[in-house]
Amino acid sequence: MTTEFNLIKRFFTRPTPQADLGVGDDAALLRVQDGHQLVISTDMSVAGTHFFADAAPYFIGWKSLAVNVSDIAAMGATPKWATLALALPTVNEVWLAEFSRGFFDCANKFGVDLIGGDTTRGPLNISVTIMGEVPVNKALLRDGAKVGDEVWVSGQLGAAAFALAKLIDKNGAFDYIDEDELARLLPELHMPQPRAALGLALREVAHSAIDISDGLLADLGHILARSNVGAELVLGHIPYAQLKYGDTHPSDLQKMALTGGDDYELCFTAPASAHEQILQIGQQLGVPLSCIGRVVENAQLTLLDALGHVVTLNQLGLERDGIARYGFDHFSA
Amino acid sequence: MTTEFNLIKRFFTRPTPQADLGVGDDAALLRVQDGHQLVISTDMSVAGTHFFADAAPYFIGWKSLAVNVSDIAAMGATPKWATLALALPTVNEVWLAEFSRGFFDCANKFGVDLIGGDTTRGPLNISVTIMGEVPVNKALLRDGAKVGDEVWVSGQLGAAAFALAKLIDKNGAFDYIDEDELARLLPELHMPQPRAALGLALREVAHSAIDISDGLLADLGHILARSNVGAELVLGHIPYAQLKYGDTHPSDLQKMALTGGDDYELCFTAPASAHEQILQIGQQLGVPLSCIGRVVENAQLTLLDALGHVVTLNQLGLERDGIARYGFDHFSA
Repeated sequence: MTTEFNLIKRFFTRPTPQADLGVGDDAALLRVQDGHQLVISTDMSVAGTHFFADAAPYFIGWKSLAVNVSDIAAMGATPKWATLALALPTVNEVWLAEFSRGFFDCANKFGVDLIGGDTTRGPLNISVTIMGEVPVNKALLRDGAKVGDEVWVSGQLGAAAFALAKLIDKNGAFDYIDEDELARLLPELHMPQPRAALGLALREVAHSAIDISDGLLADLGHILARSNVGAELVLGHIPYAQLKYGDTHPSDLQKMALTGGDDYELCFTAPASAHEQILQIGQQLGVPLSCIGRVVENAQLTLLDALGHVVTLNQLGLERDGIARYGFDHFSA
Repeated sequence: MTTEFNLIKRFFTRPTPQADLGVGDDAALLRVQDGHQLVISTDMSVAGTHFFADAAPYFIGWKSLAVNVSDIAAMGATPKWATLALALPTVNEVWLAEFSRGFFDCANKFGVDLIGGDTTRGPLNISVTIMGEVPVNKALLRDGAKVGDEVWVSGQLGAAAFALAKLIDKNGAFDYIDEDELARLLPELHMPQPRAALGLALREVAHSAIDISDGLLADLGHILARSNVGAELVLGHIPYAQLKYGDTHPSDLQKMALTGGDDYELCFTAPASAHEQILQIGQQLGVPLSCIGRVVENAQLTLLDALGHVVTLNQLGLERDGIARYGFDHFSA
């Protein structure tokens, strides 16, 4: 007889060296280091919204934790513990074995103990709460951007969005992405690599940070709104995803990089005086870091071409019905 | 335009005096008191499994937090913080207003700050992670029951299960529950009152504790299994739910009390020497506490009648196909 308790035991009970008590009681117990704050974030993933219902369960498991690790990285904190609540339509042991393998591969890579959870019957839904630690008052927040700061992003932007666009392409708009190219892009969508080490390294350098889950413009927009500042970005400095035939599709490259989701790169602002130090951090960690613009006083986000001329969202095809389409929003009308 | 960010702001952003940073950044920040452990539990509620899809949203909001508070109470801990992940099929502002009113009524009653969350589109699903504090090594665990302990339960058992049975009754088996009686029973199902104060009071007295969410036998069974002991319960000492015509349906009373879920009372074991002290705690808090049996050496759960004779689960109608039906399991075959 497969029971809820057997399920939990078989697939989700692993040693939890960083906790005092893990899975198996009414609650888990842990201790936060002296002089540290607990950092908590939660993300829910739903079949049909965040992943295809028939997606490989290994990737679903990996990504459901990775997107949470990314939130902790964006705080400049160390991920340590997670809980997993899982609604399943049926008990498919092959699916569960693969899901948990992906989840724990990610957990092991980023040093996270799974300390509690809940399994229930229902439409496939994965809700992860992640916890980490940061020295008191050292967290990287969204509200710390200052006029004169430089705006940076890690990695390249848009590859995950290209992969998704190709997968759901019905009218051949992305025929220029062939099977080889898609195979190269898919890991960016399915197995995001959160910038955990980078977040930690930036803690003493950056003024503000966010992870890019909903698109660069949308997520940088949160920093700007919270910090009550604006920014000027230079389109030519944005690290666009490299595509074999990319040069022939500059508008798609821009659209995916600016508004595509699922990159899980970090966007941060830092004083211009730290420019060289940041480049060194990138080199030490092997993470490309691009300075893409600067923080300005007026509370607007402006895009500039190579000559310093303003490029409107409309010119980039990113405006519809007079409303800027900055990024992904699950409930925009 | 209704956006995810507007939703969060309108319905789920309240002051968080117990946290350093609440809703609105990549993660929340909080500090655990010196000498305390963080206590964490998570519960997922799904339409059709945990509540009727058309249930009053106020109750769904209340209960989704209350069942988590109950887990913290069962640890002898103080609930303080929660995160809420919410999947919604559509944005229904009336529903959301009522849901959040129920959620925050429960949060205010039990001193919980909502410090973070996620909203997304999908089949209705509510995932709450609750956090609390307990002095180091003082938590009430499931594994501490000792031979000779008395077994106690709070309140009365079975009312929520009667309400649910009546609501889904198709063949008239519960016709003896009239509309007035149902109206009296429904709050037990929809608005459970977790035993937060009792859990705290028991911390220095009880050896083990659990909250009764899946039925007395199932949940006490977890204590026994973890503690590697057994128990003898006296059927006549169990605090059955009071029904107007209850005396005429003793087998239903027993079945609901022993295996019905959703009571959210506490079941705990404590040394016999603490008997009077526990009765006093109950009187001080206005919570009925019943001593229903004792912990024994052999790893079995035995039910006794008034004469001390063993009553089998089969005699109580709680066995099917030779398998004991102890309580609710979302995935039992």
